[in-house]
Amino acid sequence: MISHFREDIVFYQVREPFSQYASRNTKSRLKVVKAADTQKRFTQYKQRPPIADHGERPRQRAIFLIEVLPSHRSRTLPLTPSYFKTYCCSVKGARMSSRNATCAIIGAGDFIGSAIARKFASEGYTIFAGRRTVEKLEPLKREIEAAGGVCEARGLDARKEEEVTPFLQAADAHAPLEVVIINPGANVYFPILETTERVFFKVWEMACKAGFLTGREAARIMLKHRRGSIFFTGATASLRGGSGYAAFSSAKAGLRMVAQAMARELGPQNIHVAHLVIDAGVDTSFVRERIKAARGEQALAAMPEDALMNPASIANTYWALHQQTRDAWTFELDLRPHGEAW
Amino acid sequence: MISHFREDIVFYQVREPFSQYASRNTKSRLKVVKAADTQKRFTQYKQRPPIADHGERPRQRAIFLIEVLPSHRSRTLPLTPSYFKTYCCSVKGARMSSRNATCAIIGAGDFIGSAIARKFASEGYTIFAGRRTVEKLEPLKREIEAAGGVCEARGLDARKEEEVTPFLQAADAHAPLEVVIINPGANVYFPILETTERVFFKVWEMACKAGFLTGREAARIMLKHRRGSIFFTGATASLRGGSGYAAFSSAKAGLRMVAQAMARELGPQNIHVAHLVIDAGVDTSFVRERIKAARGEQALAAMPEDALMNPASIANTYWALHQQTRDAWTFELDLRPHGEAW
Amino acid sequence: MISHFREDIVFYQVREPFSQYASRNTKSRLKVVKAADTQKRFTQYKQRPPIADHGERPRQRAIFLIEVLPSHRSRTLPLTPSYFKTYCCSVKGARMSSRNATCAIIGAGDFIGSAIARKFASEGYTIFAGRRTVEKLEPLKREIEAAGGVCEARGLDARKEEEVTPFLQAADAHAPLEVVIINPGANVYFPILETTERVFFKVWEMACKAGFLTGREAARIMLKHRRGSIFFTGATASLRGGSGYAAFSSAKAGLRMVAQAMARELGPQNIHVAHLVIDAGVDTSFVRERIKAARGEQALAAMPEDALMNPASIANTYWALHQQTRDAWTFELDLRPHGEAW
Amino acid sequence: MISHFREDIVFYQVREPFSQYASRNTKSRLKVVKAADTQKRFTQYKQRPPIADHGERPRQRAIFLIEVLPSHRSRTLPLTPSYFKTYCCSVKGARMSSRNATCAIIGAGDFIGSAIARKFASEGYTIFAGRRTVEKLEPLKREIEAAGGVCEARGLDARKEEEVTPFLQAADAHAPLEVVIINPGANVYFPILETTERVFFKVWEMACKAGFLTGREAARIMLKHRRGSIFFTGATASLRGGSGYAAFSSAKAGLRMVAQAMARELGPQNIHVAHLVIDAGVDTSFVRERIKAARGEQALAAMPEDALMNPASIANTYWALHQQTRDAWTFELDLRPHGEAW
Repeated sequence: MISHFREDIVFYQVREPFSQYASRNTKSRLKVVKAADTQKRFTQYKQRPPIADHGERPRQRAIFLIEVLPSHRSRTLPLTPSYFKTYCCSVKGARMSSRNATCAIIGAGDFIGSAIARKFASEGYTIFAGRRTVEKLEPLKREIEAAGGVCEARGLDARKEEEVTPFLQAADAHAPLEVVIINPGANVYFPILETTERVFFKVWEMACKAGFLTGREAARIMLKHRRGSIFFTGATASLRGGSGYAAFSSAKAGLRMVAQAMARELGPQNIHVAHLVIDAGVDTSFVRERIKAARGEQALAAMPEDALMNPASIANTYWALHQQTRDAWTFELDLRPHGEAW
Repeated sequence: MISHFREDIVFYQVREPFSQYASRNTKSRLKVVKAADTQKRFTQYKQRPPIADHGERPRQRAIFLIEVLPSHRSRTLPLTPSYFKTYCCSVKGARMSSRNATCAIIGAGDFIGSAIARKFASEGYTIFAGRRTVEKLEPLKREIEAAGGVCEARGLDARKEEEVTPFLQAADAHAPLEVVIINPGANVYFPILETTERVFFKVWEMACKAGFLTGREAARIMLKHRRGSIFFTGATASLRGGSGYAAFSSAKAGLRMVAQAMARELGPQNIHVAHLVIDAGVDTSFVRERIKAARGEQALAAMPEDALMNPASIANTYWALHQQTRDAWTFELDLRPHGEAW
Repeated sequence: MISHFREDIVFYQVREPFSQYASRNTKSRLKVVKAADTQKRFTQYKQRPPIADHGERPRQRAIFLIEVLPSHRSRTLPLTPSYFKTYCCSVKGARMSSRNATCAIIGAGDFIGSAIARKFASEGYTIFAGRRTVEKLEPLKREIEAAGGVCEARGLDARKEEEVTPFLQAADAHAPLEVVIINPGANVYFPILETTERVFFKVWEMACKAGFLTGREAARIMLKHRRGSIFFTGATASLRGGSGYAAFSSAKAGLRMVAQAMARELGPQNIHVAHLVIDAGVDTSFVRERIKAARGEQALAAMPEDALMNPASIANTYWALHQQTRDAWTFELDLRPHGEAW
Repeated sequence: MISHFREDIVFYQVREPFSQYASRNTKSRLKVVKAADTQKRFTQYKQRPPIADHGERPRQRAIFLIEVLPSHRSRTLPLTPSYFKTYCCSVKGARMSSRNATCAIIGAGDFIGSAIARKFASEGYTIFAGRRTVEKLEPLKREIEAAGGVCEARGLDARKEEEVTPFLQAADAHAPLEVVIINPGANVYFPILETTERVFFKVWEMACKAGFLTGREAARIMLKHRRGSIFFTGATASLRGGSGYAAFSSAKAGLRMVAQAMARELGPQNIHVAHLVIDAGVDTSFVRERIKAARGEQALAAMPEDALMNPASIANTYWALHQQTRDAWTFELDLRPHGEAW
């Protein structure tokens, strides 16, 4: 979230001991010093609105003055290690750069969708976030704007062509539509006999049809610009029809095929279509609750570092895909935590 | 089956002209001669015990004396080419054995669906054939009945739960529902921008939702009997989202996942769920026309023997799957002609 | 094993109660009666060598006189249900038919390999069984011969070109080589750090290179006859590199690609190449020991019906593939017990 | 990276003629003008702090003043086209930052291997490049050193354990071994009958066994450091046994399984194992020659922009994978040019 932060001094609130938790990337790029005037200088900026709390939970509090090694100044990655929570503050404060391009996110949920929105906003894209309940988008909008970004929050039922088309046209009207993220939800568990016709249809409508409509309309607009990226969020169920997942896997596998066909048709026209298989649980309160319910409080507590995926890390991979040059595009990749059994 | 027919002479009643219908397989193994003493030698066979008849339909009548070439004596396959009707040395022809079991075929089209119906009818199953236009089922019904089988033809829109349920219940009421073949059509080609919401929905409804409804209702009934087979007809598109096939591959891949989830849930309850990937063109007038249109008259004529799949051959594999014992069931297999490039 | 048995009376040693265990196939085709003179008539044939004990363990003993319903006489499948152990005896005794064709089995182990040998022998093929320790082939050879079949047992190290070529040439010299079964073993578990160069090489040599050599030499011979079947035995590891299976899955996946390339090259030349993915444990004393060791005596005893695959059932699928006509060949299929979790 | 370079004017040192080398991507975003006041305005930039240089090698020298079109200001990619060397506003060029870590590249060929070496060198890694003919590594070594990096060139036959182990130990002795790239070659075409035992073995040794040995030894060392990345270069043949590719695809599929097994075993121990499927031709003189030979001079000339993959683009994806945090690692992804048919 501070990718355009140009100063060489930032404040972190770090978990102790730093050396134990900082990633290799981080340690090689940051020098951590407890400066004499840390508190004083920090206080000057306490008032300013915090930037980009990625929904990670605060841990032990210890204020450090961190010097970014010259060779790594103004680098994005080491400044957002998934290992600790950043309140990036600076003398002048970070400001986002902006560019004349829009990134539309369909299904901007609280986790993956929001993290992608934050990431692309931090890279200067105007965000068009669509979600059925527009109210739920308020925190995301406020956060991005607080960080100096632009975010349009719109109520959107992506299953309805008459809503999808104007949504994307509005996005394109604001600034050329360059990125569309299709991030449908609808993960449900139903044994086959309990899967009603209604459930089967609803899940398909949300997880497959909405993606088809959005992808097609996005392509229509991007073909005019002769470029763009359309990324689909997939899941384990996109590749596997597990017991109890007839409806969900049917819809997700259907969405994957839409993405494949689009990639083959649109690639030669300079539109990058990709499908990301999220093959594990994302670190959300919902998932943590489920784990607690299933395996108990202790199991949850005992859960190893990074056993769940940080939405911000997933967003980084969406960004990396968008950075690929068209002579070497990825259509599909998987994402799972290092400790995941698969 | 006449697998144990050990003589080197058999009588066939062949469709004229033989050369046009017999496959190379057959021709390479049989010598067809209109012998002077055909009738006389035929009479000698009359007394011998009849050998089971396959219920393939009588066509134009012409008695041939056929000599099985030595190297192929007592081989099953060349003696039962699906191209013509065999009366293995019996005057009035063998009669079909019957059993107290029903095989329901949803989407009993003129080709694969009908061939499966003929095959299971010949094995003694009562056939319940469902198809949107019941009139189109008449030839199949007559043919099966002419061969001594039982076939109920029903108008059926498999996309409608209120039609699927009674259809299968009626089948089960007639005799225990033991086999359900889900053979949806709907192969369409549409570039992504030309794929209307209506097309995407219709294709899914026919190729995916109908299969889900039928599979679920079949399972409901079979679980009472604690056994049964539910087989889904898949296609190349079940595994690959080709250019121009967003709608079709999305629906077929969705159907495949329904099959996978059902296989995992129902296998332990003694219901065999399988998915057959038909990875090439079936030998139909439609396909031949398309080839002619695409590559010209000559290309069609020059097309090698067995370049297209004979529906009867596909039906034999459905039957073989149904013959598997539950300690070694197949969930998925592919089918393509020997000369197909893949 | 009694596919050519032409009589209408056989004796079965059945598990009680028959009705509970007989498969649908069986019940629909056999009439089970306790004949007055069962014992007497049975005694007459006790002396004769039993045919085809498929390595299934004897269960409760109850002699039944079973009448094969006329419509199903001389049918293979219902007479070899995997549910009970058959001592097929008859007034004249079963006799195998023979044909002028050879089936070579490379890696004719005690289970799958032997079961395939028995099956193809019962269909009249001369068997050429190759295995490193020729002595171990003796029981198989005796059994097939006792049943009236022909079996050549040869010591064979399939990793050696200079042994594979003459082995297959000898088979072809005996009668045209029509079927070659490549059934390599070498399933080993080694964490990556414990996988020595020697282990990695040995496993590859046995599970992959031997298959390549045999497949290539088989093709060379079959191309002369312009027909034949080459079937490879695969495993879960052919598709998945599980933890601890770097060496084994590497070799099996390598073998699968050899099969795929061969199928694409040889199909158009009328040679059927297939790859069967055996995705579960086969019912062998070895596997049962492992289960006992891992989960205890009771777990083994409590194991549901048909939780493990009967080699004879697997062999039936090899046979079914060989029966396919070339207009609709299967390249790959999976096999697992109905209760298996996958 | 100059992702935060916010000016709208940059200086490039471009290969002549620009139009020939700049990609369409680039041309659509940059306006290249030889401005009258180039030198003067260039001088103004001299004072500003240098921004990290990518270690791409200097080519013909010609200073251009390039104006970034407004809509693309502050975008990373167009400012670092892999087609030319960038001196972002610095006279003698920025110097590479260095870090205390080694990246070993096994099979450091002229294209992918070298591009990866350049990329990781530019990110501050010491490069240990291994290749059978050490002389061939000289240009790479010189180039990296010219750009201020460190590169050790070693003659290495990765098929030999006694060479692999010391090679990696030496790399680790120089600085902690953090990245190992396994980039085996050996793509050969042989119809099955022409595939000698020797060819089959050699291809496996180079494309599979060498990768296993290197991966295992890399893991042994990295486990001590409790971190590291091991990336394998795959190909279309890793997933498909094409006609004429029995040997190559067998080896590549085998290597893929080694990678899969390692990923499952080592991920939980904080070692990132990934497999990249390069699904198209890389832009090399060799490939261009083949295209010319196959389709003629004109076809080659008419070949669309970016029809072949630029090794530097592939290298960027290797780098992006290495940047992933362990809570969201990718095991597998594909890479192909936008216009590729697949």
